[in-house]
Amino acid sequence: MNTFGTRLRLTTFGESHGVAVGAVLDGMPCGVRIDTKFLQSELDKRRPGRNKYSTARNEADKIEIFSGVFEGVSTGTPIGFAIFNSNQKSNDYDNLREIFRPGHADFTYFAKYGIRDHRGGGRSSARESAVRVAAGAFAQMLLNEFNISVNSGVFSVGDISSGDVLDWDLANKSEIFSLGNEDAMKELIMKTRDEHDSIGACVVSVASGVMAGLGEGLYNKLDAAFAEALMGINGVKAVEIGQGTNASRLKGSQNNDQIAIKNSSKNLIKNVEFLSNNSGGILGGISNSDDIVLKTHFKPTPSIFKSQQTINLNGDKIDFELRGRHDPCIGIRGCVVANAMIRLVIADMLLLNASSNINNLKKIYN
Amino acid sequence: MNTFGTRLRLTTFGESHGVAVGAVLDGMPCGVRIDTKFLQSELDKRRPGRNKYSTARNEADKIEIFSGVFEGVSTGTPIGFAIFNSNQKSNDYDNLREIFRPGHADFTYFAKYGIRDHRGGGRSSARESAVRVAAGAFAQMLLNEFNISVNSGVFSVGDISSGDVLDWDLANKSEIFSLGNEDAMKELIMKTRDEHDSIGACVVSVASGVMAGLGEGLYNKLDAAFAEALMGINGVKAVEIGQGTNASRLKGSQNNDQIAIKNSSKNLIKNVEFLSNNSGGILGGISNSDDIVLKTHFKPTPSIFKSQQTINLNGDKIDFELRGRHDPCIGIRGCVVANAMIRLVIADMLLLNASSNINNLKKIYN
Amino acid sequence: MNTFGTRLRLTTFGESHGVAVGAVLDGMPCGVRIDTKFLQSELDKRRPGRNKYSTARNEADKIEIFSGVFEGVSTGTPIGFAIFNSNQKSNDYDNLREIFRPGHADFTYFAKYGIRDHRGGGRSSARESAVRVAAGAFAQMLLNEFNISVNSGVFSVGDISSGDVLDWDLANKSEIFSLGNEDAMKELIMKTRDEHDSIGACVVSVASGVMAGLGEGLYNKLDAAFAEALMGINGVKAVEIGQGTNASRLKGSQNNDQIAIKNSSKNLIKNVEFLSNNSGGILGGISNSDDIVLKTHFKPTPSIFKSQQTINLNGDKIDFELRGRHDPCIGIRGCVVANAMIRLVIADMLLLNASSNINNLKKIYN
Amino acid sequence: MNTFGTRLRLTTFGESHGVAVGAVLDGMPCGVRIDTKFLQSELDKRRPGRNKYSTARNEADKIEIFSGVFEGVSTGTPIGFAIFNSNQKSNDYDNLREIFRPGHADFTYFAKYGIRDHRGGGRSSARESAVRVAAGAFAQMLLNEFNISVNSGVFSVGDISSGDVLDWDLANKSEIFSLGNEDAMKELIMKTRDEHDSIGACVVSVASGVMAGLGEGLYNKLDAAFAEALMGINGVKAVEIGQGTNASRLKGSQNNDQIAIKNSSKNLIKNVEFLSNNSGGILGGISNSDDIVLKTHFKPTPSIFKSQQTINLNGDKIDFELRGRHDPCIGIRGCVVANAMIRLVIADMLLLNASSNINNLKKIYN
Repeated sequence: MNTFGTRLRLTTFGESHGVAVGAVLDGMPCGVRIDTKFLQSELDKRRPGRNKYSTARNEADKIEIFSGVFEGVSTGTPIGFAIFNSNQKSNDYDNLREIFRPGHADFTYFAKYGIRDHRGGGRSSARESAVRVAAGAFAQMLLNEFNISVNSGVFSVGDISSGDVLDWDLANKSEIFSLGNEDAMKELIMKTRDEHDSIGACVVSVASGVMAGLGEGLYNKLDAAFAEALMGINGVKAVEIGQGTNASRLKGSQNNDQIAIKNSSKNLIKNVEFLSNNSGGILGGISNSDDIVLKTHFKPTPSIFKSQQTINLNGDKIDFELRGRHDPCIGIRGCVVANAMIRLVIADMLLLNASSNINNLKKIYN
Repeated sequence: MNTFGTRLRLTTFGESHGVAVGAVLDGMPCGVRIDTKFLQSELDKRRPGRNKYSTARNEADKIEIFSGVFEGVSTGTPIGFAIFNSNQKSNDYDNLREIFRPGHADFTYFAKYGIRDHRGGGRSSARESAVRVAAGAFAQMLLNEFNISVNSGVFSVGDISSGDVLDWDLANKSEIFSLGNEDAMKELIMKTRDEHDSIGACVVSVASGVMAGLGEGLYNKLDAAFAEALMGINGVKAVEIGQGTNASRLKGSQNNDQIAIKNSSKNLIKNVEFLSNNSGGILGGISNSDDIVLKTHFKPTPSIFKSQQTINLNGDKIDFELRGRHDPCIGIRGCVVANAMIRLVIADMLLLNASSNINNLKKIYN
Repeated sequence: MNTFGTRLRLTTFGESHGVAVGAVLDGMPCGVRIDTKFLQSELDKRRPGRNKYSTARNEADKIEIFSGVFEGVSTGTPIGFAIFNSNQKSNDYDNLREIFRPGHADFTYFAKYGIRDHRGGGRSSARESAVRVAAGAFAQMLLNEFNISVNSGVFSVGDISSGDVLDWDLANKSEIFSLGNEDAMKELIMKTRDEHDSIGACVVSVASGVMAGLGEGLYNKLDAAFAEALMGINGVKAVEIGQGTNASRLKGSQNNDQIAIKNSSKNLIKNVEFLSNNSGGILGGISNSDDIVLKTHFKPTPSIFKSQQTINLNGDKIDFELRGRHDPCIGIRGCVVANAMIRLVIADMLLLNASSNINNLKKIYN
Repeated sequence: MNTFGTRLRLTTFGESHGVAVGAVLDGMPCGVRIDTKFLQSELDKRRPGRNKYSTARNEADKIEIFSGVFEGVSTGTPIGFAIFNSNQKSNDYDNLREIFRPGHADFTYFAKYGIRDHRGGGRSSARESAVRVAAGAFAQMLLNEFNISVNSGVFSVGDISSGDVLDWDLANKSEIFSLGNEDAMKELIMKTRDEHDSIGACVVSVASGVMAGLGEGLYNKLDAAFAEALMGINGVKAVEIGQGTNASRLKGSQNNDQIAIKNSSKNLIKNVEFLSNNSGGILGGISNSDDIVLKTHFKPTPSIFKSQQTINLNGDKIDFELRGRHDPCIGIRGCVVANAMIRLVIADMLLLNASSNINNLKKIYN
């Protein structure tokens, strides 16, 4: 179903070439200051057409809030919102009505539903991710109350990596959210586009200030929730936490993060210090207060402008070349979406955790 | 919460050193033949103490079924079952009552709950995975009705890899489920154990015979569900699907799987053929009928017998050496658990999909 | 949370005096013919201002569908829709900003959230029920495929009852959906309104053509689902099924419905006949194929124009008289809402049941 | 599915004549003192065979806790428990293998599943309610921390009512939980039994000390949750809240509860006073701090020992007389079950509400 989250629940709707995409965000506590400027600025980071590294489809992506906010503050009731589509060119897709594009969801939607909205991928289009970004911005407004920040940047494009030092200042101002080696990354993207091809990318995300104790122990683990959230973004093929794939090559004596304390006279939980962060801030599915570090691997855009072999609805063999407007590297805008999903997960876990301890409940009710 | 799945819902309970671990498996359709021999044989693959590559804790892991089965067939009502603990040595853990073991969930459980069952990791112990294996075996009984098979093997231990050719026959008979290079893998495990250390491992899983069309399009995607299921296994730090991390280095023209048809005069959906399988059998979150290919990376066992630095409940600095019985490589038994989780995901999606199409519903009701 | 249903999930948003009310309806199977005329006609039955028996607030209640429908047919993706508010008179409510109206949710929303949108009840307004009616109309489009019909009428207003013979033809054309004794009912409503008072009412609903076997056995029982759905409508204080409250006065020999068969040579399940229907069509939480019969009791509208005692936000004692536009008998429009909720429950159970039986699944997949 | 609740989730299993009935109770906060004596004493109230007013099946109903409790306190992990069946007499039911008993779920289970466990009703048996009583007792341990009490008594048996004054002292010591007129009630039960018949009953429940603010506003309303919980008990045909069915006969000026304040210098929410309690303690789906008052109507036991007409699996007409051990009035033991379900609902809502307000969250995390 189209719902994400347990206590902060996002239920989305909308197709690439329908009237609008939007959602109901349910479970936002009352009393959170709603910053509509921040909301729009986050959408602007993801919106198409903002520079030459993304698709030429130009959408204003103006969000309209229908409910749940009163006098600048969340009321605790569901926040309904929509982003109306304006720059659809459905005719671009008429030639696709009967064709299954390789690397796209055309065939699988047809296999599942027997019907498909062929216009721009319909529901499976990256267009829906605008809704995720908006929801992530709402989630961040909740996280702000607890000084939790989440940042994501592009770690590699194809074989071009930022190197080991992550330059977050650069990522924040870069058109492609690069964490280093920006020029080479840009060059590779442009070169690939000129070859009518596309390229994969890897995104690094870091969440700081997350209190220890978030996440359920076995079946709604924080790491499992991140994996679900990130693998659920279009085009993602791998998710890593902390040492990630490298953990399978290490010894326990290399991988264990030894534990110290900053100031033993104070609150133990808030003063614990891990002497390394191979775990990526999560132990046993629960946050340990260290930075949460995630890597998300995006495949290259399946929309390429080279000749490809496929079949049509009659089962005829077809050689075709795609036309239209597409991102040469979905990892760039995917970076904004990954950041949003991480915010949603943390906010959800924070809400979920509120009832886990009788002492917490007594603080509220007694 | 401790529930996994949407239509085939597994709700588990139990701690390492409590009375029993067990679960309620709800949503199994009525009329599925229940094969208790297969069930026990799957548990035997995972059970501790079966050879020198796993912990010396020796548990019979005999399953008791309480409900939901009548005259050898599922009745559609919930299947309650338990595996009683027999070989706990809680005293082994008395020295851990006040210590946070590095790499374990001791600190995070304490941060979350303020209380912890220190005996063998309590709830966070790998012991609970016996329940997952049992549930996965029940799921397989459902998958059998549709000729779906799921296999998992150990692809690498530390830096020792099976190589590109996966030997499934070997995996099925190997004590360590090795997909190749078994002797070198075994040697590395024993050597690491002798050094009082542990080692990571990577598991490959392949599901064959999965019909096209399983998985929801955007928020309960098949790939996201696998990622959640696998990242939710103790010690897993990365999950890859198809090309996985490598996808972020590829071009679209390399990564797209072109599409052909085996026999265009027959059912198109059942006769489609992908000319490569970089996608790992999933497009747009929905199965495409090709093999589903997954990689799961396990960290080294955090339980090592070298001196490590940590703190106790008072915040005192402690240098300690662990004692007790532990796996030198959790990826070995993790391989069985990964296989079980994949079965659960596919069975759940198969049930979930049953109501997605009005034609399906008419076949049932009209 | 603001979600209703399990496989056909309605997630709503919106306040009485906000921008819009609306919802995401998720889980509608693909391939259902979407009849927008029927949809609007159902909304018209509930819309305010259509006659003198309802509030003078005049809303067109035009629905806008954002997604999930393509070329006149459901696509299986979520249906997003909204009804924009047009005739709000928020100023009517300025005097209520600091007052808790008796019989309303003003105090309880304030106790829960510490914040409230005082304009027309905000989220707690009956306005949101327009969304339920729209969703119920979508559900009916699914039920149409299986020849299931649902009808509701007003059985009593205050002490005026329709009597034992329910006149469904009258209910379908009556302005107040009366099942009999329409003139006396109307007279009582008008008389009560003239006295600046309001009056309660009871609605009877009958669902015909529901196949045997819907509903889960113990925790998502069909009767429990109806009770939740109907008690969840604003102003409902009691729900009865079959003999209802009267069942507690009967003997088993009076209440049991004996069982016969219409034609024993045919499908037993489709030919069973109950010799009475005291059960109201549900046994053990599961439909038995007989008519499902429900009674829903609505309290009188809490908005009355007589002087009432209450307090304000400072805890000061206040005597106040309400102004504004209100229904004298919420049971009238509640009748339309009850019908919609029953449709939603049946449609949800029908979808949920699709995966309960291995034979059903084989019909779909093999 | 067999799960009840949102944050305090009860997932049950078990059949009347299987190995055991039991459950996983998930979401209990850590740190709640677990009183096993109270737990067993609640089970004893419901257990069969304790006096001549219930069935002669004699079960010890000893509960075994498998997990989630450590050193006398809840750990926050799931509580697994079971009650093993001991006094099954499956042979009593051999003659029922092919017969559908009137008033029972035999036909509907067969229609749903095509298979049924005919022994004593299988899953649909009242036996499962032992699990609900145990879970309700756990819930009460949480409610104890907030001084919330829940009591239920038998208000009427057939036409014999306790009258308007509810005698709770009597209910607490009465074998039939009578709220008044105990001797006449007992006499009616015995007389009906002697006639080989059974009789309906009505139960009143009152929850005191519930803080204002529990319940969601529109779709997980407190009243809707009670209705679902109570209508979901075997044999319940109607649920009333506050004025209940009578509300549909009243005028607004009669039904509205006017509002005063006990001490305006103190916390307004804790000092509000309603001048009547027609609402039954719930406004707009949210508790208002007044007593919550509920009425649950039980049908007569369908198991009667008079000749009844039915059919068998072949569709043959059968006249049969039931044998075996049955309650003459299921409302008596149903009273204990109703009380348990109400406890579960309140505990669940209390947990759910913890994250609804940013101020609550700051008390926990900052």
